Amino acid sequence: MDAESSDARLIIAASETDADLYYASRFLAPDAFVFLQIGSEKLLLVSDLELDRARAQAQVDTVLAISRYQEAAKQSGIQNPEQLHALHHLLVERGIKSLWVPGAFPIQAADFLRHAGYQVSFSSASFFVQREFKTTDEIGWIRDVQRHTEAAMGAAIDAIRRADVKDGLLHRNGQPLTSEAVKRLVALSLMERGCAARHTIVACGDQGCDPHNHGSGPLRAGRPIIIDIFPRSDLTGYFADITRTVVKGEPTDEMRRIYETVLEGQELALGRIHAGADGKGIHQAVMDLFEGRGYATGEIDGRMQGFFHGTGHGVGLQIHEPPRIGKTSSILQAGHVVTVEPGLYYPARGAVRIEDLVVVTKDGCENLTTYPKEFQV
Amino acid sequence: MDAESSDARLIIAASETDADLYYASRFLAPDAFVFLQIGSEKLLLVSDLELDRARAQAQVDTVLAISRYQEAAKQSGIQNPEQLHALHHLLVERGIKSLWVPGAFPIQAADFLRHAGYQVSFSSASFFVQREFKTTDEIGWIRDVQRHTEAAMGAAIDAIRRADVKDGLLHRNGQPLTSEAVKRLVALSLMERGCAARHTIVACGDQGCDPHNHGSGPLRAGRPIIIDIFPRSDLTGYFADITRTVVKGEPTDEMRRIYETVLEGQELALGRIHAGADGKGIHQAVMDLFEGRGYATGEIDGRMQGFFHGTGHGVGLQIHEPPRIGKTSSILQAGHVVTVEPGLYYPARGAVRIEDLVVVTKDGCENLTTYPKEFQV
Repeated sequence: MDAESSDARLIIAASETDADLYYASRFLAPDAFVFLQIGSEKLLLVSDLELDRARAQAQVDTVLAISRYQEAAKQSGIQNPEQLHALHHLLVERGIKSLWVPGAFPIQAADFLRHAGYQVSFSSASFFVQREFKTTDEIGWIRDVQRHTEAAMGAAIDAIRRADVKDGLLHRNGQPLTSEAVKRLVALSLMERGCAARHTIVACGDQGCDPHNHGSGPLRAGRPIIIDIFPRSDLTGYFADITRTVVKGEPTDEMRRIYETVLEGQELALGRIHAGADGKGIHQAVMDLFEGRGYATGEIDGRMQGFFHGTGHGVGLQIHEPPRIGKTSSILQAGHVVTVEPGLYYPARGAVRIEDLVVVTKDGCENLTTYPKEFQV
Repeated sequence: MDAESSDARLIIAASETDADLYYASRFLAPDAFVFLQIGSEKLLLVSDLELDRARAQAQVDTVLAISRYQEAAKQSGIQNPEQLHALHHLLVERGIKSLWVPGAFPIQAADFLRHAGYQVSFSSASFFVQREFKTTDEIGWIRDVQRHTEAAMGAAIDAIRRADVKDGLLHRNGQPLTSEAVKRLVALSLMERGCAARHTIVACGDQGCDPHNHGSGPLRAGRPIIIDIFPRSDLTGYFADITRTVVKGEPTDEMRRIYETVLEGQELALGRIHAGADGKGIHQAVMDLFEGRGYATGEIDGRMQGFFHGTGHGVGLQIHEPPRIGKTSSILQAGHVVTVEPGLYYPARGAVRIEDLVVVTKDGCENLTTYPKEFQV
């Protein structure tokens, strides 16, 4: 059984957290609702609470009130009919017997439907393959978010650039400038532009060695500060992603070498991206370059050091989505929007990550990122 | 098979969007990782990228690198071992044969594990029943968020109160005061307090009749404005929730009657909450009161009118979680934190919702909400 030979596609999820459902319905709701696609007809089964809004906003053919099907289930003897009972009645009404669901489809619903006699098969890859291929509209929306993200990056780096250095610490208005304060500038800048950033990273010195450490406390002079911003547009739901690493004051020669090597790795990757290229080969080339420059990757003194994350990931309605540029094979294709973000992380020596966001094209890629790359500010 | 007779509990999810996983691990990560509980021992299986942070932050006994188990899978002949192959090796190593998973557990992982010979059973109710019962710490965290939420409500209502009325529209600094502007005040206030609000509602007039319409455009005098704020603490991950309805200028007599009736309904519900009470009975009592006052509920002219959502829902690491105070039976118990939020919605006549957040106690409830309820401001 596959997508084409199934009677219908089915998603049960909250579209606020399920990108496939939002993609299919363009209807944002906090609670789980039912999406059904029969041939090209798209249906939603929603609570009374969401009915009017769904009818006004959802880009589907039919919006049905779940209460109507719960009523039918009640007639058939179910005392407190729930969403799945209502769905069952809708499926019977439509003569559906086989369902194609996302890999993340809940086991509870799957077992209920299988028990009721439906064949339920899932997609182990993308549920909507076309979601990977961004349309001109989608690229425009992502470009807009990236522009806002760059404005926020500018606010962050300007604050670092203009800081005074006192006793090795960055200061602003006589107070130590902290990661938290810079993250607040980023958040404010994004809010002004209708975007929301969660988990912005402003990580100084060894904090940057843990790529998911968001950073905290006073920023220090002469230490790399990794700034990674990946907000979502409130309006369109699309993400963007950028990382810059800067140092206020004088970096060590080793820090400079690490920065130059990461930049070289990024340029190598950017140069190799084109439709048909395998992400695995691009990632390996960056790894090889780093190894060749003497930057080894692996567990040292009980922690991972070197370049121990992927070179890139798809960005769209999710901040991390297919394809990947990493250890496993993944063929890049025109219309993919991916990050290119090598990094090197060595405690006490330096941590650097540089990240752009690009659209894969037939012959190369178009960089959606224009923010300059300078280490010392 | 149930939770106790299974060899282990298993969750595979991203803790940023999966409250059970965050509850069990207290480790916030954007990508899916594996949580396993064998007896009282809690284990995480995470990517190299998350290893250090997980070891530092997660409240579990053991943090394992997935790469180690992927390596084992490779040795056994899997070419590109993924998360599930690694998990399989860990389960074999631990002698686990039966697994207890949440109802939302992904079908793809369930079918993989069942195919590999594991018995996979799911919880159709809460995965961690104790998550419903808030500890003193948790109540403290929720109380903190509610205090911040009330400060944000104050910022919103102050702006409305201080607005000038010109041609029936609210004005501030000579410009029309919009829903968007008030939502921005709310967002700023919350950001200052380390909370993030998504989908704040500031809905004026008939916009308020659709309880999930977030509101937009100029605010009008003499029309009810529903303000519903439900932010999450960046620090603790807990939510709070409050709604007030205000009118600037002179409401109609009918609007006043609707407001007084909703308030009466809320007081009725608050008075009936105690450990052992059935949410269904409380909700029905509110419905009955509204009906008795002449406020009918149902579809009129193709849209739902009256009181067509639940009276309340649990709040914690999710904005909507068990128990419910609504159409289905749900026994309230001490330590539950629930909203109490009746509303009445009639296009062209008035829309009002009033919401407090309370802790259920043995003999009643403790209201975590102190913000005053006044209609005309």
